Amino acid sequence: MKYIQSLQNPQVKQWKKLLTKKERDRSGTFLIEGFHLVEEALKEGLVLEVIVSEKIGLSPRLDIGSAAVITVTEEIADSLSDTETPQGIYAVCRQPKINEGVSNAKTYLLIDAVQDPGNLGTMIRTADAAGIDAVIVGRGSVDVYNSKVLRSAQGSHFHLPIIREDLGTWIDRLQKKNIPVYGTALEGAATYTDIPAGETFALIVGNEGSGVNKDLLSTTTANLYIPIYGKSESLNVAVATGILLYYLKK
Amino acid sequence: MKYIQSLQNPQVKQWKKLLTKKERDRSGTFLIEGFHLVEEALKEGLVLEVIVSEKIGLSPRLDIGSAAVITVTEEIADSLSDTETPQGIYAVCRQPKINEGVSNAKTYLLIDAVQDPGNLGTMIRTADAAGIDAVIVGRGSVDVYNSKVLRSAQGSHFHLPIIREDLGTWIDRLQKKNIPVYGTALEGAATYTDIPAGETFALIVGNEGSGVNKDLLSTTTANLYIPIYGKSESLNVAVATGILLYYLKK
Repeated sequence: MKYIQSLQNPQVKQWKKLLTKKERDRSGTFLIEGFHLVEEALKEGLVLEVIVSEKIGLSPRLDIGSAAVITVTEEIADSLSDTETPQGIYAVCRQPKINEGVSNAKTYLLIDAVQDPGNLGTMIRTADAAGIDAVIVGRGSVDVYNSKVLRSAQGSHFHLPIIREDLGTWIDRLQKKNIPVYGTALEGAATYTDIPAGETFALIVGNEGSGVNKDLLSTTTANLYIPIYGKSESLNVAVATGILLYYLKK
Repeated sequence: MKYIQSLQNPQVKQWKKLLTKKERDRSGTFLIEGFHLVEEALKEGLVLEVIVSEKIGLSPRLDIGSAAVITVTEEIADSLSDTETPQGIYAVCRQPKINEGVSNAKTYLLIDAVQDPGNLGTMIRTADAAGIDAVIVGRGSVDVYNSKVLRSAQGSHFHLPIIREDLGTWIDRLQKKNIPVYGTALEGAATYTDIPAGETFALIVGNEGSGVNKDLLSTTTANLYIPIYGKSESLNVAVATGILLYYLKK
C-alpha cells in the first residue's frame, strides 16, 4: 500500500487540482469526500484511487475492488477537504460515461443555470428520490462535480445519469418522442395541479433569481406555476422541484 | 443623523454581540442584513435602528418610519456581515411578540431539532409560501434569528408567527382542539397521499439525521412517509416539508 507524507508530492498536487472545474473537465475525473460517498462510488465501480488518512485507516466494510489505496498523513488529508470536519477519506472517481441507458428514460429533470451548489445537489438528490430517470444540466449551472454539489446530493450522482448538454436540443429531442416538456414560470403559466400526472414527462427548473430562460419557456409543451398562498415571493428552487416531481410522478 | 466612525464605539460592539444567540435572547432583538430584509422588517414596524454604510447611503425607497438611522464607515458595515458580498445595510429589529393571532391558526408547521440554518430558513419560507398560519420551533433547533436562517427565509420571519416552545405541549394543545397532528417517519408510517388534505392540520418535521423524536411520534394522530422511488436514502428535510405542506393544503 502506497504511503505519501509530503504535501509537495505530485500526486497530492494532482488531487488538489481536482478542486477546480478545469482540471475535472480535462482529466474526466473528480474527487469525493466522506465514507458514504466513497462507498456509493465503489459500488458503481467508478473509483480509481481511495485516499485515506493514516489517522483513520481503511474500514474493512469497504469493498475496494480494483481501486488503488493510498495512505496519507492527516495534514495531506485535511488539505483536500473543504469541510470543517474532514472525515479523512477521499476517492478519485472517473466521470461516468452516459450511454444507451438514457435513450429508454421516461422521466427527466432539466436544470437551467442553477448557481448554488447546495441547491443543485439537493435537486439531484430529489430527482433520485422521485425515481426520475435522467437529469440534464444546461449551460450556466454550477459544475455537477463541485464538492458542495456532491456533498448535497449524498451519493445520487452514482444512482442516475447526469448529462451536461444544451437544454434546447433536449427539449426538441423529447418533444419528437412525444414526451411532454413542462417549464416553470411565474407568469403565463398553469397551476401545476391542472396538469395530469403521467408515466412520462420532462420538467425544467431554473435559476434562483431569474427562473428558466424565456427562450426555453417559449418551446415547452406547457409552463407550470406553484401557487403562493402566503406572503413570500417565491419558493426555493429545490423545494419547488420536489413539489413538482412528486406531483407529476403520481 | 448619527454617524459612527470607530469600530470601538459601544453601539458597534452591541451590534456585533447580536451575532450571538445569547445576546439576541437577552435583548429581545436581532440583526438583519440586506435591502430586502430591512424593507420587509420596516413594513412590519419591527425596526429599531437602520444601519447604513456611508458608501451606499440610504435609499429614498425605504419608508423609515420612527426607526433611528445611523450612518457608519464601510469598515464598520463590513464587520457586521457574515456574507462575502455585504450589501451595506442592516437593521436592529425587536423580536415580534407572539399573541392572540395564533389562537385562530388552522395550519401549523412544527420543527423538531433542525440543525442546518439554511434548512430552517428554507422551511420557514416554504411554510409562508404554502400559507401555513404558524411555525412552532422546538428545543434543539438552530436559533430562528441566526443570520443564515434569516437570509434563507428571505423575509418570511416577518410574514407569519414563529413560536419557540416545547413541541410536546403544542401537540397536546392542538389535539384538544381536534386539529390532526401528523408526524413524519420512515417506519410505521402511512404513505402521505393516503391522508386526506384538509382545512386544518399540523405537520411535524425533524432533525436531518435522526428525524422527529420518537416520543413525539408516539403522540401524533398519524405519521406520514414520502415514498422513495429511486436509490437515495431520503429527501432533504426542507424539500420534504414542501412536498407535504403543498399536498396537505390541497
